[in-house]
Formats: sequence, C-alpha cells, structure tokens
Amino acid sequence: MIVNGKHYKTVWYSSEDNLVYMIDQVKLPFKFEIISFKNYVETAEAIRTMIVRGAGAIGAAAGFAMAQAFVENRDEDFVNKAKEYISSTRPTAVNLFYAVEKVYAAGMVSTLEAVNAAVEVAEEDEENCRRIGEYGNSLIGENYRILTHCNAGWLAFVDYGTALAPVYVANENGKNPFVFVDETRPRGQGARLTAWELNQSSINHRVIADNAAAFYMSGGRIDMVIVGADRIAANGDVANKIGTLEKAIAANYYGIPFYVAAPSSTFDRNCTSGKEIIIEERDERELLYHTGPDRTGQMVEIQLASPGSHGLNPAFDVTPAELITGIITEKGIFKPNQLLDNLK
Amino acid sequence: MIVNGKHYKTVWYSSEDNLVYMIDQVKLPFKFEIISFKNYVETAEAIRTMIVRGAGAIGAAAGFAMAQAFVENRDEDFVNKAKEYISSTRPTAVNLFYAVEKVYAAGMVSTLEAVNAAVEVAEEDEENCRRIGEYGNSLIGENYRILTHCNAGWLAFVDYGTALAPVYVANENGKNPFVFVDETRPRGQGARLTAWELNQSSINHRVIADNAAAFYMSGGRIDMVIVGADRIAANGDVANKIGTLEKAIAANYYGIPFYVAAPSSTFDRNCTSGKEIIIEERDERELLYHTGPDRTGQMVEIQLASPGSHGLNPAFDVTPAELITGIITEKGIFKPNQLLDNLK
Repeated sequence: MIVNGKHYKTVWYSSEDNLVYMIDQVKLPFKFEIISFKNYVETAEAIRTMIVRGAGAIGAAAGFAMAQAFVENRDEDFVNKAKEYISSTRPTAVNLFYAVEKVYAAGMVSTLEAVNAAVEVAEEDEENCRRIGEYGNSLIGENYRILTHCNAGWLAFVDYGTALAPVYVANENGKNPFVFVDETRPRGQGARLTAWELNQSSINHRVIADNAAAFYMSGGRIDMVIVGADRIAANGDVANKIGTLEKAIAANYYGIPFYVAAPSSTFDRNCTSGKEIIIEERDERELLYHTGPDRTGQMVEIQLASPGSHGLNPAFDVTPAELITGIITEKGIFKPNQLLDNLK
Repeated sequence: MIVNGKHYKTVWYSSEDNLVYMIDQVKLPFKFEIISFKNYVETAEAIRTMIVRGAGAIGAAAGFAMAQAFVENRDEDFVNKAKEYISSTRPTAVNLFYAVEKVYAAGMVSTLEAVNAAVEVAEEDEENCRRIGEYGNSLIGENYRILTHCNAGWLAFVDYGTALAPVYVANENGKNPFVFVDETRPRGQGARLTAWELNQSSINHRVIADNAAAFYMSGGRIDMVIVGADRIAANGDVANKIGTLEKAIAANYYGIPFYVAAPSSTFDRNCTSGKEIIIEERDERELLYHTGPDRTGQMVEIQLASPGSHGLNPAFDVTPAELITGIITEKGIFKPNQLLDNLK
C-alpha cells in the first residue's frame, strides 16, 4: 500500500525494542498517524478500541501482542493471562484466535519462535490477500460497477486487503472499475476508510448511504457485490459487518452476484453454521453520537439521535450461504458448500 | 399531538394576518420552536429547506402557501407564478400537487374559497390519518415489535401521522407496541423525529442503524414493518424515503408483513407504475456532512466522509407492489393491486 507516495503496512513489529506499530485508523481519513505500543496490554487495547480493525489486521496485531507478552515475561501465568486478555478484545474475530493460538504454541518452544510465528502470521496475511486479488480480478469485467460494504481493503489487513484487492488488481489491469462505497453506519468505515483508500489509488468511486444500495441495484447500476468476512462457518454462512446481510438479500433479489473475499484463516470448520456465531453488541453511543472534524478541523462529537432515546448496536450479522455466489480465497474461488472440501 | 403537555399541529394557518406557522423540524429533536412565514415565497422555501417535511405536512403547507398567494395578490400572473414556484419545491411529493391544484381552483372563484380549500386540505389530512390509525391498529397484536423507516409520524402530517398512527392507536388500546426505529440516513429523520415523537408519547422504542434491520428480522424479532409513502403508482408501486426498498426486500425474504400507510391522496392513478417516478437527487453534502449539537449544545457541522471523496444522494426509492403486503388508507386496507378499484 502507498500513502502519499510512501510504502506502508497497516501493522508491523520491531523486534529490537519489542514495539508494535500501527496506522491509527480512528484518526483516518482526517489525519494519517503511526502509533507504537510497548507491551501486550497496549496492543490489545488498540484492538479493543479499533485503532486497528479488520479481520487480517486484528489477527496480525493479536499475534504481535502475544509475541510481545513472551518477550515481556515467559512466566506461565503471565503468558496465559496475556492469551486470555488478548482473546477477549473482539469476540467475533476468528483470525485473532488463530494468530494467538499459533504464536502461543510457538512460544512454548522459545520466545524467538513466538516472534517468528507472529511475523509469519503477518506475512501469510499479506501473501493471501495478494492471491485473493488475483483470483477476484478474474471475475471483474471492463468498467464494472462494484458495491462494497465496510472496509475490507488494505487497512483491514496487513496489506492489499480482501474485498478491495480484486478492485486494485482490476484497476492495475486497466479495467476501470467504479466502486459504490456503502457509508457503513454506525462507524462509517466505508465513507471514511474505503473511500480514503480508493482515493489514494485514484480509483473512481462514490460514497452512498447504506440505504441507497438496493436503489442502485434496482436501476441495473451495480454489476457485482464484494464484501469481506470476519468469520465463515463450515456450511458457508458468513459473519461480517452489520448490514452485509441486507446487501446480500437485495443482491439475491436482483440476481446480482454476491461475493465474499477472505483468507482461508477466516474459515472456522468447528463452527457448524452461522447460528452458532455470537454477535457482538457494542455501545449504543457509537450509533447515537458521531465524531468528525468541524470547519476548523477540530474533532467534535455531535449528538445524532433524539436525546431521550436509546439505541441497539449489533456489530455484525450473518449472511446465510444460500445468498452467497462465491467465496474468494487465496486457494481459489469456491461455492459456500465447497469450502469444507477445499480449505484445511 | 401533544408536546410537553400542550396540543399542537405540525403546520397551521392564521387568516387574520395571512401567516403560516410550522414546527421547525430542522431544529428538532434538539429544540422545539415555532416559525411563522408571511408570504408564499417564505412558505415555499420552508418546504424546500425541509423545515416542514413529510407527505401530508408538505401538502398542507403547499395549500396554505397557495392561499397566501391569493391573499397577497389575485393578479393572474402572480398566482400562476406562485403555483409554479410552490410546485417546484419537492418534485416527488404528490400531496403537494394535489393541494396546490385544489386551492388554485378554489381561488379562481374567490380568495375566501382559496383559504377555505387550504384549511379543508389540512383538516382532511388530519381526519385521514386518524382513520389510518384505526385501520392499522387492527393488524397489530399484543406486544408487537414493529419496524419503521424515516418519519411518517405526526410530524410528517398535520396530526396523527400514517405509519405511526396505528402504533399510537395500538398503544392507547394497551397493546404495548415496541418500535425499531431505523436511523434513516442521510438526514436521520428516524433517529431524530420518529424517536422524538415516540418519546413524547412514552412508547417503547430503540433506534437502530439502517444496516441492522435485516439482522433483527433474521432473529425473528420483528413482527411487521409499517412505512409511509410519498407517492403510490396505479399498479401499487410505492415511492418513499431511500432505504424503504431494502427493508421491503428483507421483509419479503423473511416472510414478515410489510405495510405501507398513506392517505388516498398519495395515490396517483395517472402514474402507471413506479418506473415513471423521477427520483430526486439531493446535494451530496447531506451525506458527507452532518449537523448536531456538541457537548455544550451548540449546533456544529462535522465531516463524515473522507475529504477527497464524493457522494451520491438519491432521496427516494421505489418499492415494487409485489413486496407490499397491504396499503393502509383512510378508506381501508387494500392489496396494492386493489387500489385502482377502491380509491378515487
């Protein structure tokens, strides 16, 4: 990924001083800043407060946090407590558990092995996203108009992204893609992060209210939908950002292909179906208030809703396999019911 | 309608001084203020800037504006220009044209007739909404959980409302309804106006992101959907606030009854199908910026989206008749394909 002409990753680790670095995604798209975290607690808090967000980037950050813990103190109680603490930050993110388990197991051998395993998790994520981009590109025609929801771009991973990776590759191949960017309330990751990414790469796009997607589908103005995934169940059901389900139902109604792009680490064969996935309920304040820069550039929180009223704020929903045309992974594109046979 | 224990209407006319009064819906729910407008141009601008909004209230305001014009100056050129000007304020609102035509025709007889016709339009709207509430109540069971989109409550009409009128009647009948209130981006009329109305009447409700409706439907937590309409075509297609279509598609997928509540004046038999309805495209700023009170109560506009990106902002969409369970009117509840035979 390139920001202002310079190469970056979303999250990385410096073994010399045991520091984890991240692009601060809470400040984006209004300010571009790098923050460092000096121990596993700080890194875990960055996951919880969504300074880093998105399946792959959370996984890499969690792996680095687990490695940090081993460097801090190899004592069994300490690393077990760290493992539990890091795992509690985002209950729906399967990549997080994958990374923590892998680094924890390696750390049982040695601290160096833990660090190597964490770096490997991050590199694997990057390579997987690159391949997803190549596979996904094969589905995209000239001048395709693609709807995406939330941010499953490079900011959600270590690099490249998933849902946006095919768009980037299609753009590099001169296909001139156009992206309808769902705002993605309540946190607005589409309007803020996806729009920012596409702008950095000069890809033609427009932000729309989440309410407008079906309207553009009904007018024949959307050729395909590509979204990311936080967790994919054994039967092909997909947990992803709240609102994904509505887009899938609408795409199905209009016969528009609906693709999910995700690395195979997102696939959880121990989860039989989406019904087993516990949906994170987040603070109502995310919905009832919103923060952004005022005319002077100062960040201000404003009230959005009627002062006397309360909100409900589910963070994810589950899209049933029957609504998904295909799942784009680093190992190929599969029908939801082919995942069990094709992914380890 | 009761606000802080006192009876109000959304819009009214004072014939002594030719003033139109409105509750300022741009300031709600943060401030409750009444504004007066001293001529048809001011009243028309209030419609354009959405100080008054919602099908019935726009109709009443437009009728009063037309009456104001006759009182100002009966000259043919003057009233014809006024008719054109008022009609141009909101291109999708059929009630507006209905009211303007009715008052204009009456004004050809005398100015007093114009004023009487405008008052009649407003009273008719109020009575129609009361009846819609009674009919709609027959569909609501004990402890029903009802989803609504945008604001088709009393603020959208002269009194009572349409989509919310059945909820108010059900509440008065002790049925304990619960309302899921779609935020309704980009302007947030659900989070702001519907939530405020329900709060004034102590009806149990929660604001949700527009993205969350299908999630609650998938969990079996929504018993029915009731929305309003800005225009109903001869074949039963319904133009309403952007996002209505997505809710209808989702309700259809889950087999949840989807009702539209609207007075018969919303029905346009000259419009063969929804395909003929021109969708108003509004300023992208409504989507990319949002205004609300900061911690000190001062109204501040903040930027929501990535600074370099543009937006698309369609104000309405068209829900096809096949997705609509029934249309609740002041003359009864009809299937979309029964409207032509039952409404004049």
